[in-house]
Amino acid sequence: MVRVFLDTHRALMANPMRLRLRSFASSASALNWEGGVSMVQGASRGIGLEFVKHLLEKNEKGHVIATCRNPNGATGLLELKNQFAERLNILPLDLTVESTIEESAKSVTERYGSLNLLINASGILSIPNVLQPETTLSKLYKSSLMLAYEVNAVGPILVIKHMWPLLKAGGGFGTERDVAVVANLSARVGSIGDNRLGGWHSYRSSKAALNQLTKTISVEFARKKDPIACILLHPGTVDTDLSRPFQRNVRADKLFTKEFSVQKLLNIINNTKHQDNGKFFAWDGQEIPW
Amino acid sequence: MVRVFLDTHRALMANPMRLRLRSFASSASALNWEGGVSMVQGASRGIGLEFVKHLLEKNEKGHVIATCRNPNGATGLLELKNQFAERLNILPLDLTVESTIEESAKSVTERYGSLNLLINASGILSIPNVLQPETTLSKLYKSSLMLAYEVNAVGPILVIKHMWPLLKAGGGFGTERDVAVVANLSARVGSIGDNRLGGWHSYRSSKAALNQLTKTISVEFARKKDPIACILLHPGTVDTDLSRPFQRNVRADKLFTKEFSVQKLLNIINNTKHQDNGKFFAWDGQEIPW
Ligand SMILES: NC(=O)c1ccc[n+]([C@@H]2O[C@H](COP(=O)([O-])OP(=O)(O)OC[C@H]3O[C@@H](n4cnc5c(N)ncnc54)[C@H](OP(=O)(O)O)[C@@H]3O)[C@@H](O)[C@H]2O)c1
Ligand SMILES: NC(=O)c1ccc[n+]([C@@H]2O[C@H](COP(=O)([O-])OP(=O)(O)OC[C@H]3O[C@@H](n4cnc5c(N)ncnc54)[C@H](OP(=O)(O)O)[C@@H]3O)[C@@H](O)[C@H]2O)c1
Repeated sequence: MVRVFLDTHRALMANPMRLRLRSFASSASALNWEGGVSMVQGASRGIGLEFVKHLLEKNEKGHVIATCRNPNGATGLLELKNQFAERLNILPLDLTVESTIEESAKSVTERYGSLNLLINASGILSIPNVLQPETTLSKLYKSSLMLAYEVNAVGPILVIKHMWPLLKAGGGFGTERDVAVVANLSARVGSIGDNRLGGWHSYRSSKAALNQLTKTISVEFARKKDPIACILLHPGTVDTDLSRPFQRNVRADKLFTKEFSVQKLLNIINNTKHQDNGKFFAWDGQEIPW
Repeated sequence: MVRVFLDTHRALMANPMRLRLRSFASSASALNWEGGVSMVQGASRGIGLEFVKHLLEKNEKGHVIATCRNPNGATGLLELKNQFAERLNILPLDLTVESTIEESAKSVTERYGSLNLLINASGILSIPNVLQPETTLSKLYKSSLMLAYEVNAVGPILVIKHMWPLLKAGGGFGTERDVAVVANLSARVGSIGDNRLGGWHSYRSSKAALNQLTKTISVEFARKKDPIACILLHPGTVDTDLSRPFQRNVRADKLFTKEFSVQKLLNIINNTKHQDNGKFFAWDGQEIPW
């Protein structure tokens, strides 16, 4: 914290306005954390858990908040907690219960006062006996459409809504970037322009909606000159519970490990600039059409 | 019906397979109606009501099914019923109650056995005390997102799901087209690529989702070689209840009458070909980016 304090002090001497603008939530005790504060939402398993691991391992000063529906059952996170102690903070958050999102925001506000990175890594494609990716219009059910939308599109945006003041307070401070980053895990199949196979109506629709919502809020962040860039990420086809039932037709070299995908995605995140706000990137940095 | 019967008979002589493929639901009494059978969903007022009027006036042999939530209160439709008698059939349909969609499909199956045109003209943007177009992320409510999605994206797709067999049976028979047309009223603000102003999160998201769902089902229709083309339409800014609260900033020459818009849209619909399946057109025929 000493370096951060000195930097802050120097900036204040040079340009008091600049600091006032950037740290308006300065009533909180420690706004700017060396190494930054990251939140991974949907961190119990899969890509989210891998993000938590990488963020803790690759940045020995970084703090990570990992949220999940059931912290007591999140064995992967509990193992990391043993290893990384107070650098990892596990909070309960269920996307379908907005009060748990508000509670998380309150808790992060009290403990950190700012956020430099928010990764929405949650997502649903199939749930046995509840949600089946559709193969035909005649098997499209309203309940599936509504559930996928609630979890894949609405939930992540509500998380951003409640973390917004924290991200504004954080910006790029303590990181190598000049902006805080919001990274929403989308999917190439959410692209309308790239939709050549059809099917998976509920999932495709929810991800297209997530793309539109992310684009919409990116416009407001830009207009308000918030030090935040919102991006959408396609991780590739990654070997997780989500893709497992559908891996049969995937060529071996097209099925990524979580390690590989998360490394690529963190590379994109760490290099995100203001002008990337509102863009949709694949794991290899290529932009995906809407 | 005589001309249709003769055409059908001639086609049967020339190519019996072709007819079998095109009229597989031939157990119904009268599949092919001279002038065609059109359904307008969301016909109580605004653009939907105007479509019903034009379809009845411009095609003196056409049959029109107009659906709305509350037929007894739909004064505009009841006036048309007085004028056009059995060429207009008014049915109750509430997009949020799937059983009313199924009942409509049953009723159309019994009376007509086929459909050549389905226009989903319903839509919600604001409802006093229930739904407000958002001006900022901090005023985004889950209930608004869910309601707009249910009515603007899910409902129209469920209508298509249940009308699908009727549209397959109808194709372009009795019309000047070689395909049945499904026209979903979308909106330019549903375009992600064209989103430069932000705001209206719930509406934008629901229309982007409608676009993705329409694209998804168009892929299946094409693959199955169904004689159906699904298109998305932006009507322009049209003087209706929906746009009224937001007309202040619209230049007079950019605010269309219902008559003008519907004339333009019907022109697009009547000229729709197989290869237009899955496309998104503005009132002037220009394609809109996703
Ligand atoms: N894997 C791929 O090939 C692939 C491809 C394209 C895009 N994606 C996207 O990448 C993201 C991560 O996918 P993944 O493969 O890591 O999936 P995964 O292994 O199935 O993990 C999904 C995560 O989402 C969480 N989640 C589900 N419902 C939730 C809710 N209501 N509230 C909070 N969290 C919830 C799960 O928590 P629980 O443990 O509590 O269920 C779990 O942590 C998703 O957005 C997915 O759509 C994945
Ligand atoms: N007007 C414009 O400037 C404009 C611009 C772009 C796109 N659009 C789109 O064009 C379409 C028509 O808009 P409009 O201007 O004609 O709107 P409108 O005058 O407000 O009419 C909306 C129609 O949707 C119906 N509707 C609402 N909820 C319904 C439900 N749950 N079940 C069945 N029907 C329901 C209404 O029926 P009730 O009478 O029962 O409420 C009414 O008939 C919409 O999709 C809209 O998004 C309009």
